[in-house]
Amino acid sequence: MLEATIYITLKSGVLDPQGETVKHALHSLGYPQVEEVSMGKYLRIKLDGLNPQQAATHLEQMCRRLLANTVIEDYRFEIKEIA
Amino acid sequence: MLEATIYITLKSGVLDPQGETVKHALHSLGYPQVEEVSMGKYLRIKLDGLNPQQAATHLEQMCRRLLANTVIEDYRFEIKEIA
Repeated sequence: MLEATIYITLKSGVLDPQGETVKHALHSLGYPQVEEVSMGKYLRIKLDGLNPQQAATHLEQMCRRLLANTVIEDYRFEIKEIA
Repeated sequence: MLEATIYITLKSGVLDPQGETVKHALHSLGYPQVEEVSMGKYLRIKLDGLNPQQAATHLEQMCRRLLANTVIEDYRFEIKEIA
């Protein structure tokens, strides 16, 4: 069994209203040291019956076809063997 | 300047409808090898004027007070020095 961890983040230059909102909220709560907040998604996917190379090909496709909006988002993933 | 990376995930045992939906969508797209999907949040926060120890204390509070819902979510973070 393999476990993939996928990180999806906004491309730099893309407006991040959610991050801005969190930043302002943190300022209001008394953390003026917060300079910048960027929000992203984090997925863990368990895959069965694939070797790491096949998994990488499949994950690449999954990210492009469904998980990330590649117009505005970047993605990267790591694959590890689990018991 | 410090950069913190925060990972917020659902506690195990908490229903993850978003993850289930993504799993079904991936099955429909032709990836039956997907066994389990769990969705989480991923934040990057830049902090100014704090040392790593102060930053850790502040981040701990930020997670508890705003970023994570500790009833159903776990969080962890890493802090690194950036230029």
